[in-house]
Amino acid sequence: MNLFEAFKKTDKQVAGHGSRNIQVLKDVLENFDGEEESDHYGSGKIINDFQNKMARYLGKESAVFFPSGTMAQQIALRIWCDEKGMKKVAYHPLSHVEIHEQDGLKELHQIESVLLADKNSVIGLEDVVQMEETISCLLLELPQREIGGQLPDYQTLVDISNHCREKGIKLHLDGARLLEVLPYYQKTAAEVCRLFDSVYISVYKGIGGIAGAILAGDQEFTEKSKVWKRRHGGDLISLYPYIISADYYFNQRSEKMKQYFEEAKELASLYNQCHAVSTLPKVPVSNMFHVHFTAKKEEVEQILISIYEATGIGLTGYTKGIDDQGCYFEVSIGDNYSDVANENLKEVFKMLDEKMKQI
Amino acid sequence: MNLFEAFKKTDKQVAGHGSRNIQVLKDVLENFDGEEESDHYGSGKIINDFQNKMARYLGKESAVFFPSGTMAQQIALRIWCDEKGMKKVAYHPLSHVEIHEQDGLKELHQIESVLLADKNSVIGLEDVVQMEETISCLLLELPQREIGGQLPDYQTLVDISNHCREKGIKLHLDGARLLEVLPYYQKTAAEVCRLFDSVYISVYKGIGGIAGAILAGDQEFTEKSKVWKRRHGGDLISLYPYIISADYYFNQRSEKMKQYFEEAKELASLYNQCHAVSTLPKVPVSNMFHVHFTAKKEEVEQILISIYEATGIGLTGYTKGIDDQGCYFEVSIGDNYSDVANENLKEVFKMLDEKMKQI
Repeated sequence: MNLFEAFKKTDKQVAGHGSRNIQVLKDVLENFDGEEESDHYGSGKIINDFQNKMARYLGKESAVFFPSGTMAQQIALRIWCDEKGMKKVAYHPLSHVEIHEQDGLKELHQIESVLLADKNSVIGLEDVVQMEETISCLLLELPQREIGGQLPDYQTLVDISNHCREKGIKLHLDGARLLEVLPYYQKTAAEVCRLFDSVYISVYKGIGGIAGAILAGDQEFTEKSKVWKRRHGGDLISLYPYIISADYYFNQRSEKMKQYFEEAKELASLYNQCHAVSTLPKVPVSNMFHVHFTAKKEEVEQILISIYEATGIGLTGYTKGIDDQGCYFEVSIGDNYSDVANENLKEVFKMLDEKMKQI
Repeated sequence: MNLFEAFKKTDKQVAGHGSRNIQVLKDVLENFDGEEESDHYGSGKIINDFQNKMARYLGKESAVFFPSGTMAQQIALRIWCDEKGMKKVAYHPLSHVEIHEQDGLKELHQIESVLLADKNSVIGLEDVVQMEETISCLLLELPQREIGGQLPDYQTLVDISNHCREKGIKLHLDGARLLEVLPYYQKTAAEVCRLFDSVYISVYKGIGGIAGAILAGDQEFTEKSKVWKRRHGGDLISLYPYIISADYYFNQRSEKMKQYFEEAKELASLYNQCHAVSTLPKVPVSNMFHVHFTAKKEEVEQILISIYEATGIGLTGYTKGIDDQGCYFEVSIGDNYSDVANENLKEVFKMLDEKMKQI
């Protein structure tokens, strides 16, 4: 049996909100009035209400619902490039835009990118200050997902924001996991967003909706974004399946981010107590972190499978090998964690520690 | 009261499948197994099964589900332009790509367009033969929606297809309403699609799903389309709300297109019997047609409102003025038509005729 299959067979999983099955949508619709009308190419009560709610939550003048963050962010960067008449933006080497979008930004928008900071670090003030000045927009991702969800300290954000405003560089927030970092910063979403000219948040990560994204900024910016949304083919006749799910799960989970954060720290410390296992960051600053093993992928996966079979508890469905030396996987805490009894969890980690020592 | 409000208050509507409300999705989910897993970035059983089913139905090697036709068609044209190394395509002056997409094709793909035929006619063989030869792809829309849903005869399609193959010009089908024209042509979808290199169909027009589109062609073409789908921001983590709805309503309605076609001809003849009213085309060739009035928009709307109030039957929720001289609206026959008793319909048209004479 492979790791994915063994994971699927466990009774309880430690991370996530549970299976992304059709029940996620059925739950939303169960008590929803069938007479309510669909949105219609970006207008109508369902989409307007949610966009207004998100604009208020993010402290921005206006917000637009998009089918995906990929679309929303390319469009944000394009608008800022057009405004400045300069098709160059800066972001982290492991930004979603750089590594997960088949170069859409370059292929569709002809926008060049400047990569800031070493790929294992978050972008700091000095990276921004040293940056050449022919940049229209700087994108910051909070937290930096591909390095375990790391964050700069809040003062760095403030300093970067001030610097960009002084230099006339637009600042865009890749806030795919913005809600998830608010407990660490001890700020409201609006307080963080005030530092940025435009903001994207995902509705299916910590929030756990089905798909979709919000792009927020001032009215002039969001109006332009709607034109580009049409051009991208994202102005669907009906986006309501995603919108009503986003709203439903936002209401359920936006207040639970502090709990997920505390649980992530607890779980990370359990991993860090095991031989040849460590988390990145050592102490999480959101609901997420990466778990690294100084052992080969195949060996680690055999150990994980044996633990799943013995305990019925699943930690991850995959690992990724690193240079044949080690491997890692990502953890994002959600509703599942509190369903696992503490005693059972301790047993899992006792086994993990013992088995890792035997390699 | 305005026309839209009066229309909303009618008990029965003559055109369409009924309200695009949330019930449309609730009906799909009611008997759907909640344990079924979501698609995941273009893979998984739900999306694969439907794509395979559509590929078979269209007689193509492969099919890809897209969030929108706007996205699917720009991508098809881009792929054919890249293959030929020439960013120029040809289509009708009232093509969706030309008038409804905020110039996405030009703004995102830098593709030039050559407009073929007079805007009031469908594209004929002579338009294609006379066309300059620096064209990578010709897009044909069947039926030509903005002129009432007109069609070339089938032999013209065959001739255009042969000509394009001879000249090395790719032929793309805008088949947003392909199923709706099959009864007129008396052909299967696969027979029509065989004439084209790539095909798009919509799943929310005659089929009546929620949103989405299918793009079909050979494997090499669809593989490239998936890369572009990712670039456009259309490769969503979950597209299943659209896919399962498309499948559900395809199963219900794909065999009803002949009925809709016959009903459209019947309804058009009722309109054509009224004073100062005519349909375009005179005899429909699909489930759709336009209704033209040689009277001012405001006068026509007052007449329609009075008919709705007297009979409880609604014909349209809007009209569009033409040059202050006349007005028109679009009709697409769906499930609603057979719910209106023939007697009541005759009463409606008797009133319409009388009132139009009094203007």
